[in-house]
Amino acid sequence: MSRFFSDKYADLTPYTPGEQPKTGVLVKLNTNESPFPPSKKAVEEGKRALESVNLYPDPEHTLFREKASEVFGVKKENVIVGNGSDEVLNFAFMAFCDEKTPAVFPDITYGFYTVFAKVNGVPYKEIPLKEDFTVDINDYINEKGTIFLANPNAPTGIALPLEKIEKILQSDRDRMVVIDEAYVDFGGESCISLLKKYDNLLVTMTFSKSRSMAGARLGLGIGSEDVIKDLNTLRYSNNPYNVNKTTLAMGYGALCDEVYTKENCKKIIENRAFAVTELNKMGIQTLDSRANFLFMKSERKSGEEIYRKLREKGVLVRHFTSKRIENFNRVTIGDREQTEKFIQAMKEIMEEK
Amino acid sequence: MSRFFSDKYADLTPYTPGEQPKTGVLVKLNTNESPFPPSKKAVEEGKRALESVNLYPDPEHTLFREKASEVFGVKKENVIVGNGSDEVLNFAFMAFCDEKTPAVFPDITYGFYTVFAKVNGVPYKEIPLKEDFTVDINDYINEKGTIFLANPNAPTGIALPLEKIEKILQSDRDRMVVIDEAYVDFGGESCISLLKKYDNLLVTMTFSKSRSMAGARLGLGIGSEDVIKDLNTLRYSNNPYNVNKTTLAMGYGALCDEVYTKENCKKIIENRAFAVTELNKMGIQTLDSRANFLFMKSERKSGEEIYRKLREKGVLVRHFTSKRIENFNRVTIGDREQTEKFIQAMKEIMEEK
Repeated sequence: MSRFFSDKYADLTPYTPGEQPKTGVLVKLNTNESPFPPSKKAVEEGKRALESVNLYPDPEHTLFREKASEVFGVKKENVIVGNGSDEVLNFAFMAFCDEKTPAVFPDITYGFYTVFAKVNGVPYKEIPLKEDFTVDINDYINEKGTIFLANPNAPTGIALPLEKIEKILQSDRDRMVVIDEAYVDFGGESCISLLKKYDNLLVTMTFSKSRSMAGARLGLGIGSEDVIKDLNTLRYSNNPYNVNKTTLAMGYGALCDEVYTKENCKKIIENRAFAVTELNKMGIQTLDSRANFLFMKSERKSGEEIYRKLREKGVLVRHFTSKRIENFNRVTIGDREQTEKFIQAMKEIMEEK
Repeated sequence: MSRFFSDKYADLTPYTPGEQPKTGVLVKLNTNESPFPPSKKAVEEGKRALESVNLYPDPEHTLFREKASEVFGVKKENVIVGNGSDEVLNFAFMAFCDEKTPAVFPDITYGFYTVFAKVNGVPYKEIPLKEDFTVDINDYINEKGTIFLANPNAPTGIALPLEKIEKILQSDRDRMVVIDEAYVDFGGESCISLLKKYDNLLVTMTFSKSRSMAGARLGLGIGSEDVIKDLNTLRYSNNPYNVNKTTLAMGYGALCDEVYTKENCKKIIENRAFAVTELNKMGIQTLDSRANFLFMKSERKSGEEIYRKLREKGVLVRHFTSKRIENFNRVTIGDREQTEKFIQAMKEIMEEK
């Protein structure tokens, strides 16, 4: 730390992204990326756009928002575009949380929520998931702060049904609820339809998972016109040209090719079912995942040991050290070949004495 | 504004980026973009990278930082990479300003500085430029806050020589000075060499101007290892994957093609000299610009009138409404054809009664 760094960040511990290994990893299943390349249409649009990057991107993201609003069945005024959904979530922490309105979220969820709260200097409250790692909505009904729920949740993969989210929304219409749908395309139910009835809802989505664009950085927020205006006030006060031209063009291309996205999601769901069956045969416990990853645990070997031994075999998964989940590992569901290699490695590990 | 928006932003007026017109503009000279396409090497690297955007970018930006450190003669630990230099500047406002340490900058400068201060809730002080729009460094020597100076300054284009910046740096080594070198390649002097002697210096640079990459969003901060660490703490707490894969690859390509960058800068400098001569012949006053734009004013016609009439002729320049500069217009220096069209339009306007 330099002598110039402001005291206000004394307690700040940055987010640790999953490792992006440079060598030695044969099967990378640690950051929930898609194993499939981006859509050909996305690549084509991106290649065309990058020839003219001497000019700034459209700060209003008009063409992309028009296409997104068509695909998601909303108006373009309901859509904000971010440099990944992380940026949209960060704007939501800034906009809708303060000393009077803490951020409220589960104790086991996307690890960035606590960092967003801290970096923006807003208080937050973590509500423990139940013993079985599900959300009990009764824990949220009387909370006065802004609620952040990843649905499906990460790293558990467990999804909340729409009617439960609706109960939270209708229990207090003056409380904002942010539903982070990064993983919704792998078997969850999107809340977007609830926007017709509730203006206290913001839905965030990412192109990093089902649309194979993690490296391009593209995310969305979908909410009422006024909520989107608030977020845009912050976007224009932080970085009006927040999304680059090539990424916008690729996102447009990806949205023109929803068949490809759906096919890929179907494959991931099939591979997930295959992995669950095989893991359960070995006595490994898996939570009920609706995401492109599995959260798994063995009674016989520690999470750390499994992580380490998988790594020795060239299979990289994500291990977390926080107490409640230290015996789990989160494993991205890749293509069939990756999944088979992972299962084979697990068999070898579980057969060891 | 929604009923959920935090009071803390009640006074926030977002930055207004220059218009990105969709139709009716023949000559776009309003946002200081490069008229030249990105380097062929940048395009080639970018096209290769976007095929694999299903995987996240390297959050450490290693390859790009290695290349940048080679080109700029520093270590890679001295370099942070941003989603445009705006993001690096924003991190600097967060990191190095607070209630005890206001931001200090000229009254006429990059309009985003006041917005960065406001959105981060830090106090700021604007110091008037002298009558001739130059910076008097004596105004800064005794200031205790973090100093932000664009050099060359925008929208004036006027540059401060290195020895004057060194005087500010050495007058108080416990005060951070941020030099924003967005326009340095068009005739200014970079401060990077001063980093060997001063650790209270952060230099920011952009690939939007001389490297024809405004649409790709890429900026740098260069400073001491500790200063860069502070900025990275904020980067990892806001958006670890802040720069996408394609942009990083294009930036790498651009840095492998410095001859192209230098040739383009030379052309802009020549076109600027041509424009100055022609404008002065018409009795138009121009400030001494070392940037890829000119700041110009007529005694006979108001800035607003010239802006409007240029626009009617399909030439878009940037007009500011703040009192001291309301009679000026900022005109980007484009290629020869654009510059000639602009000069022709000015001739027609000045010949009118």
